[in-house]
Amino acid sequence: MIRMASGWFYLSCLLLGSLGSMCILFTIYWMQYWRGGFAWNGSIYMFNWHPVLMVAGMVVFYGGASLVYRLPQSWVGPRLPWKLLHAALHLIAFILTVVGLVAVFTFHNHGRIANLYSLHSWLGITAVFLFACQWCLGFAVFLLPWASMWLRSLLKPIHVFFGAAILSLSIASVISGINEKLFFSLKNTTRPYNSLPSEAVFANSTGMLVVAFGLLVLYILLASSWKRPEPGILTDRQTHCQVPSSRLLCLVGK
Amino acid sequence: MIRMASGWFYLSCLLLGSLGSMCILFTIYWMQYWRGGFAWNGSIYMFNWHPVLMVAGMVVFYGGASLVYRLPQSWVGPRLPWKLLHAALHLIAFILTVVGLVAVFTFHNHGRIANLYSLHSWLGITAVFLFACQWCLGFAVFLLPWASMWLRSLLKPIHVFFGAAILSLSIASVISGINEKLFFSLKNTTRPYNSLPSEAVFANSTGMLVVAFGLLVLYILLASSWKRPEPGILTDRQTHCQVPSSRLLCLVGK
Repeated sequence: MIRMASGWFYLSCLLLGSLGSMCILFTIYWMQYWRGGFAWNGSIYMFNWHPVLMVAGMVVFYGGASLVYRLPQSWVGPRLPWKLLHAALHLIAFILTVVGLVAVFTFHNHGRIANLYSLHSWLGITAVFLFACQWCLGFAVFLLPWASMWLRSLLKPIHVFFGAAILSLSIASVISGINEKLFFSLKNTTRPYNSLPSEAVFANSTGMLVVAFGLLVLYILLASSWKRPEPGILTDRQTHCQVPSSRLLCLVGK
Repeated sequence: MIRMASGWFYLSCLLLGSLGSMCILFTIYWMQYWRGGFAWNGSIYMFNWHPVLMVAGMVVFYGGASLVYRLPQSWVGPRLPWKLLHAALHLIAFILTVVGLVAVFTFHNHGRIANLYSLHSWLGITAVFLFACQWCLGFAVFLLPWASMWLRSLLKPIHVFFGAAILSLSIASVISGINEKLFFSLKNTTRPYNSLPSEAVFANSTGMLVVAFGLLVLYILLASSWKRPEPGILTDRQTHCQVPSSRLLCLVGK
């Protein structure tokens, strides 16, 4: 019954996995085919790691990691393994992000280009800073054993909101970053950005894919009914048949 | 009691109003002081209406209009006046947006500049298109009297989610737009964008203000407990004292 009722959820996961993979693969293809590929030597080819790692870290892995508690398997049994998975996936996302930042800072410093002047960079660094704070606070409050249930209940909606807010900021950063990169790369060419060469269409489409992926994550996270039922609901209400979601009724009944 | 309990709400409204006013005033000041002011003649001074009207329409008025049902006064009594206010404020937001689009398209056509090539424009026009669909669907389903309660209940969470999603897309568009405008305006000058002249600091700060305003709207809309209680909750539960929010208890008790 759980399997049947959560069919839509898994279909969304499939769509999410496909969109997320396409976001990363499209960014790699853009950098490889039109921007000369990758290197780790301070050159423009080192910069090319930046968009790939930021899309992978701050959007795709971050988005996937956010949705751990929407898996029906996480609703029953002990929470700790799911918390560890949630924290570990976010840590991978954060490491990818930091390597992506190292790529752009090293490229800038190597070529004596200024750091952190554009609005893209101001917003991006704010998103990464908030991500670091969110991870540390989440680890301290929800994983370490000292915090009371009261404190955890108080901070949980704030943790969920900031999780979604950081993803929104990341998407805005990625969009402004792709836009900026295309203006840089496609000036002084026979086919500039405003003539929409194939690279521009491809990179714009990659940006729109990132937006679609982000919105799907936010939908599953915030708007859908695919939330882990609170323990109180399962124990208090099952005898009264007042559980609002049919999905939850299946869970209680079987 | 309602007044006491909703003190935090009004404090947030005050902050929201201040942030929203600052977003619009900062954008006007940027265009007036550094970009030569406003005109309606197809010149670059006509373009200057575009950022002001898009920030005012797609972010500030749109954000304010979204929060009508979070006003405690809207929780009791007939819904129709509040629905009309919600629809009318969004209509004002949409008209400002359309005039903002006319400004940029006229400037482009007058100067034989291509339309709709950048990722900023692709995302922005998507946000405006979704806004138009959302307004028409909202009008048809929630204001016209034909739709059943079942259909309205089904569509309400989708309407709320898309409302928040469109605001997120608008913010991403505004950020990429400010970023793009600064790269255009501050090239071939003695103090380019990457040397962070005062205009760049001011416009970057305006972008960060827009982000702060948007996040506060989304927090009040999605994460806070300032939601109009569903009619069923008020009538079914008041005798059982099971209403989860103390704010709601005040409402029922007094």
